[in-house]
Amino acid sequence: MSTTIDAVTIEDVHAARARIAGAARVTPMWPSVSLSDLAGVPVLLKCEHLQRGGSFKFRGASNMLGSLAEPPRGVIAASAGNHAQGVALAAAERGIPATVVMPANAPLAKQAATRGYEAEVVLVDGPLEDCIAHAQEMAAERDLLFVPPFDNPAIVAGQATLGLEVIEQAPEATTVIVPAGGGGLLAGVGLAVKSLRPDIRVIGAQSQAMPGVVASLLAGAPRTVPFVQTLADGAAVAGPSALTLELIERYVDDVVAVHEEDIARTMVLLIERTKFVIEGAGALGIAALLARVVEADGPVVPVLSGGNVDINLLDRIVERGLTGEGRRRTITFETAHAPGELARISRIIAAQGVNVIEVEHDLVDTHLPVGAALLSFRLDIAGDEAYEELSEALREAGMRPGTVSDFVTPAAQSIPP
Amino acid sequence: MSTTIDAVTIEDVHAARARIAGAARVTPMWPSVSLSDLAGVPVLLKCEHLQRGGSFKFRGASNMLGSLAEPPRGVIAASAGNHAQGVALAAAERGIPATVVMPANAPLAKQAATRGYEAEVVLVDGPLEDCIAHAQEMAAERDLLFVPPFDNPAIVAGQATLGLEVIEQAPEATTVIVPAGGGGLLAGVGLAVKSLRPDIRVIGAQSQAMPGVVASLLAGAPRTVPFVQTLADGAAVAGPSALTLELIERYVDDVVAVHEEDIARTMVLLIERTKFVIEGAGALGIAALLARVVEADGPVVPVLSGGNVDINLLDRIVERGLTGEGRRRTITFETAHAPGELARISRIIAAQGVNVIEVEHDLVDTHLPVGAALLSFRLDIAGDEAYEELSEALREAGMRPGTVSDFVTPAAQSIPP
Repeated sequence: MSTTIDAVTIEDVHAARARIAGAARVTPMWPSVSLSDLAGVPVLLKCEHLQRGGSFKFRGASNMLGSLAEPPRGVIAASAGNHAQGVALAAAERGIPATVVMPANAPLAKQAATRGYEAEVVLVDGPLEDCIAHAQEMAAERDLLFVPPFDNPAIVAGQATLGLEVIEQAPEATTVIVPAGGGGLLAGVGLAVKSLRPDIRVIGAQSQAMPGVVASLLAGAPRTVPFVQTLADGAAVAGPSALTLELIERYVDDVVAVHEEDIARTMVLLIERTKFVIEGAGALGIAALLARVVEADGPVVPVLSGGNVDINLLDRIVERGLTGEGRRRTITFETAHAPGELARISRIIAAQGVNVIEVEHDLVDTHLPVGAALLSFRLDIAGDEAYEELSEALREAGMRPGTVSDFVTPAAQSIPP
Repeated sequence: MSTTIDAVTIEDVHAARARIAGAARVTPMWPSVSLSDLAGVPVLLKCEHLQRGGSFKFRGASNMLGSLAEPPRGVIAASAGNHAQGVALAAAERGIPATVVMPANAPLAKQAATRGYEAEVVLVDGPLEDCIAHAQEMAAERDLLFVPPFDNPAIVAGQATLGLEVIEQAPEATTVIVPAGGGGLLAGVGLAVKSLRPDIRVIGAQSQAMPGVVASLLAGAPRTVPFVQTLADGAAVAGPSALTLELIERYVDDVVAVHEEDIARTMVLLIERTKFVIEGAGALGIAALLARVVEADGPVVPVLSGGNVDINLLDRIVERGLTGEGRRRTITFETAHAPGELARISRIIAAQGVNVIEVEHDLVDTHLPVGAALLSFRLDIAGDEAYEELSEALREAGMRPGTVSDFVTPAAQSIPP
């Protein structure tokens, strides 16, 4: 039997709620008609991105600091993002000095937000692991309290308060889907929901790029996965701890993995349909539902766990999401490099009501016959059907629309050794 | 005295609310700590972008259709955006066939959304005026009811229901700021607020690019302004009608104009601080407050009137907003086109913790001495202070950082006649 699992109980969760009431917000539950249409079941969004600090992290940090017998001299944490802001804000509220160790390449906006909550930011060249090691050293040297991101009963109990809100705000729910990185939120919500409403399914959602909880469940023990780039950067954690994994094994029905492409498409969809900007990690739950990785047979509550997207990346995410939906695509022609080709093709594209956002005329960089050129158009287009209609209209006019790879062999595209 | 002003009374507004209850949402009032800090007064956001159809337009359309003695054979409207979606949705709910005439260059997403609400979309090559003329012709030919965007007492009474919600949700407010295009929402909110709470100031906000209401107030009669491109495309209306202008003269304290740059900066700020995507027109009220065009001495309610931003433009809006805030900028050097220049400059930029997102090496397109080149870096940077520090570090290393215009005279930049 487990040695750690009784470290968090439903009584701890109730106590956490009382402790953080007034500091943490009760975030709204928002029904979405258009997402319900897409999902085929009623969708109620738990809007935790509207929590203070922009994610659920404030709950755990606030509970941990509030449950100390006496305030520490100062606190320290290591984080590239949401945990940094959650700890900084919780400490500032209690007048405790906070230090946050961040990777030097953390987004400028997240550094600025953390400083904005009065924390001292220390930058470390290297990955998050180096930051954690540095923070633990500083904690020992300067007698500071290290606040871990998830491997702590008070942190888990704090995140679990979100689960209490879900069952009160949406008692009719049959399924709750929770994003997971290290599993603190998932473990806590599972504990809270299953203790009070064992009939509600609790599902975790991770990125396929970094499925540390999925891997650990398969292995039956904590496992780590390598760090890779993922749109769900807020959940880019190597794996769960013994504590979070055991709680997940006991209280969570299933944990699924979501394709990166589906994360991007869901982020775009959320902007268009709900007017919410949700970060990649925060969109995992609704992405799992819309990609049919999770089947739901009744009202479902995807937890939108955070909204701290790096605005400098937002344009690329939107581009990727639109490309994934077939609403932005490139159409390419081999032309004779003769006058009038551009005008002729452009006229047909315009007549189909399609917008051209970029034109590339490639004369020298390919291995085409001399005198030939590739002419590519980047398009804003309604979708697959509109693209078929455009292709048909172009073929009827004697053109041969295609993609770059139709004209240039992969070998020719790369520089010879 | 006025002939039209008594066309809408507070009793009409109460009746409208009863009529649209259950169909229209009571949208949330959302306090924002960080916007309050920036504004220096408590800021409560009226989240009308979360209304069905993504803007306030559904209120007016729903009230107009609900107040008809018998349902029409069908309705028709002309719009490039929010009004189209509001009418389509209100008609679909009552089972009335709807036709919407849109400019052929209206965003694909708005065309798709309008069709998604079961409306027939007719595209007209030309500006909105041509669409209106076409819609009125079709209305006469096919016996359809034309639903105007603002010049109608039932439309104004419907929009006015938002004013009732404001004074109930934020009785402590001293100022309400309302975006204005044709003035339907502003007139309605002014009427509702001043009838019940004459102590609350009601301010209208327009884009400086198209200040039709401001111009009309100055002239004392409806005036039109030319159509120009504006980020507030949802408020790109030539001017108010006699009805809306008279109500605004009577019930509104002031109408101000907001610079386009401030609209872009505010849209970026709203994404980062509130996680709401607000369209340009919807951001006019909070932009006016943050740009200090409106002075507020107590809790202020900016109405976020819509969130239907064209996602294909979002990347350019973000770019413009970040540029306006000094967080994205270009730094240029004249170089000898010798090996190592790029590496040398890049190293200094990296050491300052600044991200390079684009490099341009311009050898041929300028009138520089042969052998010289311009080397430009597009930067993600924390702000003005960080830029000064970077410039100083570069000068200490013997470089002469500048902007393109430091190196190339305006005459040399243009092609000679």
